[in-house]
Amino acid sequence: MDRKKVIAGLIGAGRIGKMHARNITTQLPDVFLKTVADCEPDDKWVNSLGIPVCAEHCQVVLDDPEIEAVVIATPSATHVDMITAAAKAGKQIFCEKPVAFEAEKVGQAVAAARDAGVGLQIGFNRRFDPDFRAVRDAVTSGKIGTPHIIRITNRDPVRPALDFIPDSGGLFMDFSIHDFDMLRFLSGSEVVRVYAAGAVLIDPEIEKLGDIDTALITLQLASGALCIIDLSRETHYGYDQQVEVFGSEGSISARNTTPTNTVLSTAQGVFSDQPHYSFVERYETAFVEEMRAFFTSVRDGTPPQVTGEDAQLAVKIAQAAQDSYKHNQPVEVV
Amino acid sequence: MDRKKVIAGLIGAGRIGKMHARNITTQLPDVFLKTVADCEPDDKWVNSLGIPVCAEHCQVVLDDPEIEAVVIATPSATHVDMITAAAKAGKQIFCEKPVAFEAEKVGQAVAAARDAGVGLQIGFNRRFDPDFRAVRDAVTSGKIGTPHIIRITNRDPVRPALDFIPDSGGLFMDFSIHDFDMLRFLSGSEVVRVYAAGAVLIDPEIEKLGDIDTALITLQLASGALCIIDLSRETHYGYDQQVEVFGSEGSISARNTTPTNTVLSTAQGVFSDQPHYSFVERYETAFVEEMRAFFTSVRDGTPPQVTGEDAQLAVKIAQAAQDSYKHNQPVEVV
Amino acid sequence: MDRKKVIAGLIGAGRIGKMHARNITTQLPDVFLKTVADCEPDDKWVNSLGIPVCAEHCQVVLDDPEIEAVVIATPSATHVDMITAAAKAGKQIFCEKPVAFEAEKVGQAVAAARDAGVGLQIGFNRRFDPDFRAVRDAVTSGKIGTPHIIRITNRDPVRPALDFIPDSGGLFMDFSIHDFDMLRFLSGSEVVRVYAAGAVLIDPEIEKLGDIDTALITLQLASGALCIIDLSRETHYGYDQQVEVFGSEGSISARNTTPTNTVLSTAQGVFSDQPHYSFVERYETAFVEEMRAFFTSVRDGTPPQVTGEDAQLAVKIAQAAQDSYKHNQPVEVV
Amino acid sequence: MDRKKVIAGLIGAGRIGKMHARNITTQLPDVFLKTVADCEPDDKWVNSLGIPVCAEHCQVVLDDPEIEAVVIATPSATHVDMITAAAKAGKQIFCEKPVAFEAEKVGQAVAAARDAGVGLQIGFNRRFDPDFRAVRDAVTSGKIGTPHIIRITNRDPVRPALDFIPDSGGLFMDFSIHDFDMLRFLSGSEVVRVYAAGAVLIDPEIEKLGDIDTALITLQLASGALCIIDLSRETHYGYDQQVEVFGSEGSISARNTTPTNTVLSTAQGVFSDQPHYSFVERYETAFVEEMRAFFTSVRDGTPPQVTGEDAQLAVKIAQAAQDSYKHNQPVEVV
Repeated sequence: MDRKKVIAGLIGAGRIGKMHARNITTQLPDVFLKTVADCEPDDKWVNSLGIPVCAEHCQVVLDDPEIEAVVIATPSATHVDMITAAAKAGKQIFCEKPVAFEAEKVGQAVAAARDAGVGLQIGFNRRFDPDFRAVRDAVTSGKIGTPHIIRITNRDPVRPALDFIPDSGGLFMDFSIHDFDMLRFLSGSEVVRVYAAGAVLIDPEIEKLGDIDTALITLQLASGALCIIDLSRETHYGYDQQVEVFGSEGSISARNTTPTNTVLSTAQGVFSDQPHYSFVERYETAFVEEMRAFFTSVRDGTPPQVTGEDAQLAVKIAQAAQDSYKHNQPVEVV
Repeated sequence: MDRKKVIAGLIGAGRIGKMHARNITTQLPDVFLKTVADCEPDDKWVNSLGIPVCAEHCQVVLDDPEIEAVVIATPSATHVDMITAAAKAGKQIFCEKPVAFEAEKVGQAVAAARDAGVGLQIGFNRRFDPDFRAVRDAVTSGKIGTPHIIRITNRDPVRPALDFIPDSGGLFMDFSIHDFDMLRFLSGSEVVRVYAAGAVLIDPEIEKLGDIDTALITLQLASGALCIIDLSRETHYGYDQQVEVFGSEGSISARNTTPTNTVLSTAQGVFSDQPHYSFVERYETAFVEEMRAFFTSVRDGTPPQVTGEDAQLAVKIAQAAQDSYKHNQPVEVV
Repeated sequence: MDRKKVIAGLIGAGRIGKMHARNITTQLPDVFLKTVADCEPDDKWVNSLGIPVCAEHCQVVLDDPEIEAVVIATPSATHVDMITAAAKAGKQIFCEKPVAFEAEKVGQAVAAARDAGVGLQIGFNRRFDPDFRAVRDAVTSGKIGTPHIIRITNRDPVRPALDFIPDSGGLFMDFSIHDFDMLRFLSGSEVVRVYAAGAVLIDPEIEKLGDIDTALITLQLASGALCIIDLSRETHYGYDQQVEVFGSEGSISARNTTPTNTVLSTAQGVFSDQPHYSFVERYETAFVEEMRAFFTSVRDGTPPQVTGEDAQLAVKIAQAAQDSYKHNQPVEVV
Repeated sequence: MDRKKVIAGLIGAGRIGKMHARNITTQLPDVFLKTVADCEPDDKWVNSLGIPVCAEHCQVVLDDPEIEAVVIATPSATHVDMITAAAKAGKQIFCEKPVAFEAEKVGQAVAAARDAGVGLQIGFNRRFDPDFRAVRDAVTSGKIGTPHIIRITNRDPVRPALDFIPDSGGLFMDFSIHDFDMLRFLSGSEVVRVYAAGAVLIDPEIEKLGDIDTALITLQLASGALCIIDLSRETHYGYDQQVEVFGSEGSISARNTTPTNTVLSTAQGVFSDQPHYSFVERYETAFVEEMRAFFTSVRDGTPPQVTGEDAQLAVKIAQAAQDSYKHNQPVEVV
């Protein structure tokens, strides 16, 4: 075994955990994924990836002194406890979003990592998308001057199953949390005020469950820039993920990506590809790159690119959006 | 002279008035523009268009029993009086926007036309743009289902001269009044609530003059749909005029139009055309079509496609946006 | 009547002639179209355009000393005679393409105009299309360096009626004659060699009539550049009219134009507009601009932008393409 | 070690060989790349990929009974001998293009594989590009009807080093060999006649070396369809790789792919991404997929998707193109 490889463990092997395992084993030759822990261990799948240890309990990962870094992909409700335990065990930590639905709880996890002196990267994968990164780079390099207006479109292809809604955190906390982070990432500025308008236009059952399915969120940044996020839980035409940063010298935008660049022209019309269908295809590269960035920071001892503080700030914005929607008032973010 | 032609007069021959005169004389063979009245009469230009009468005073138009329809393109502050006078003279009326900056004043003009039994069409030319019309048709025909989110981008290529600002009516009343009408046109629904966030990001002199240069306006419609309008007074890259209506079955959007469809690829990059530079080129067809629609309604005795009531409602929304921005509160439109 | 207007006559008021009449009367205020001559005179239509004289015989135009310029839009077979007669009458001449199907005959018309000292402009309207003009300008200004490869796509939306075929001149002489002129226009170089591959793939009836419906023509220019023209008589998806000039520094291309710039996204796909349906819409501006250019050259006494010599050279290339196809050999153009 | 993995060897670890090694070890978990043989063995690099054996001589691969499949990426001149040797050793074979520059020599390699009863897949990677595959699928499924015109654009971003030219096989045999295969792949039909026009427009030094740098190739298919390939060795704007299949019911085209989908709009213009810079990025997925297809056929005992016969037919077309260019005559492909 190559001594220089970072030895890693994965805790939680659901849909996202499995994807991380596959990405690490196939795309990151410098990382050795030694152990996968999941309460429903799946030896066959673990072995198929060449991972030697398949455990039922996370302690197998946390107690293994050889394991330097852990990837946490357990259910959201466990994230704060898992981060805390991993921090105490001295592991470098990658944790899926959301850390928690309350900024204070995220703060506990952040403190645990800080106190233990371990790095903590949060799974805001979209920061690693090549297109959004190119937008950020254009902003950073001054190509569009000072940002004035930022537009983010986030629309799912198809409404979620209704049983997903109650524990999801809701449209602002779950669905749009990525957008709040993206806004901070693209603008390099902090949100000071939020106004959220929301509606249930897709499915009245969502209202019964206390959530909404459509929203517009206006945000004002410390820099003075204005931001609009538009949200929908169902497009029918694919996963609509677009951003624009408009500034004092021009505009940079990222359009939707598509499976191919083909165009079909017939008597029925001129068709181009629909956007990628789901986050799995749309953010395929981003998921790999966030892992690469995490393990690079572990190896090099550099700070993670997306921190627990970033998660905390995104949650604060989401809370403000929830308050704003509830009271139909703009809300200051403090 | 063809007896069947509608005989028309133009009052006010500034930049817009001259454009209407040119459009009428070259594009509308069924209309005879008999008289142009302007306080600075320009015989040479009037004759060059084959218009026989060049007058200094509007009364020459209003008192001419042969003239059936008038196009009013005088300074904005005179619009209510001009409409009232033309209505009393029994003329069919086209009047440029804005009629007035207060809904009550617009109401006076509307009442004058109604009382006189004459038609009154307002210059919301964008309703006649082929692309926006195609968007509306897609909505009306149900292609995108029920509208959920409407996005309107309205950005000028270059900031106005500062001396334009004080009497302009301001960003909401002058610049965005078209968007409020467009929203009603595209959605077929009425605005019930407005929240406006604004900023001065382009030129601090604009702030000194009591105006802003950048804004986001969130609007909620009676239908439940949400709308976002983003405004900027300066893009540098051309006139940015885009709309999207996103609904329960999909999305229809109108992208920017460009002078040509050429693409240049060199070592320096892949360039397509910038958007049209100004409203003159962007809405060239729309300006002709609104005249055609006006004179068709005059000839056929049908109601105008954009009424004084439409102008009044747009002004009410603009007032609500001004109030919202001033008090940083959402404002109901009543 | 304005003394400065160019006084013009139109000979031949079929589909194209009527379009020219409409364009002149509505778009060219500096031109007075006094007379229309057609063997089936249509008083009502002529009057509706404000044209005073409706004649049956072309001599009414040619004998009118007031008429300075004539537009010839009679059947193709009459073009050489009409040009000759108009030249003898001392008129400035615009004539629709094709002048004739043999270069020698075109030469007779060219000589007649030259001997009479009158200008002769040929109806290669595509030179006046804004997109193709932008391509030419990019070439002329050196933006793409020296042209290496020129690609022209010319495809009709729907096959012609079979009774059009026999007298049409055939695919190379009738349909592609525009492309041969376009190639000379874009490249600024002359064709020295042609190889034409053709096929009947759309309708076997076309073969029975001695014509083909699909072809690829390879042309070598004196400059060394290579050109490919691809032709089809039926796309089903609209009028496909694209060009590219690829050179030593890059590429400039003109894509298809469309009625609107809207995009519809639904579960069925992402649709943009089909190309314009026919030459009438596609070249609407070009038809106006070629008239404007003609009458400008008449007024200013400047040479026409598309000459009889241009027509002659296009016909020579078409003849070479016919020969090449017939003998399956590359043919030199002399 | 997983018993079910296909055990493979790589012969030749130059630029392309290294890429295959990396793709196999990181992307194909079902394949075990045991040995790399190269006349300049690079232990360090081989070890870094977790490949256990680094050999100097290909015999180490061929004599290893555990190795079932070999990937040949040695210099082109050795391909026939290497295939023959590998076939005699009973290995399943993937060999890079070109197998040889003469159809007869390719035939020897094909015969060797056939006689040994081993599969032989040739490195026409473009067949595995997702966009070209989507074009082919649209053709196969009848979406565009019967193919009438096929257009292939193949242009390199920058001219090759001059010392590459003499042994390259030349523009038709080296550069365009992919296009000949692509044409057969997309059309499902065989080439019956070729006419090639060529020129030296980029660098006169290329002419001194007996090659050309720009060409247009017209091909007629047994189905009656016509094809045009345009070739250039230097675009300056990126790797230009586009295809279109136009048929009796419409058209399907694959445009260039780009690193991102971002658009930058400033006073300087509206910029989209340049095409991918080189075949490495453009065909990144295709290179992985051809390996996946090869090892799938090895595992499943199914015939390879690109055969030696395909290579032989492509070479025959290239020979015909060379002859056609040399003699300036269309040449039949027999």
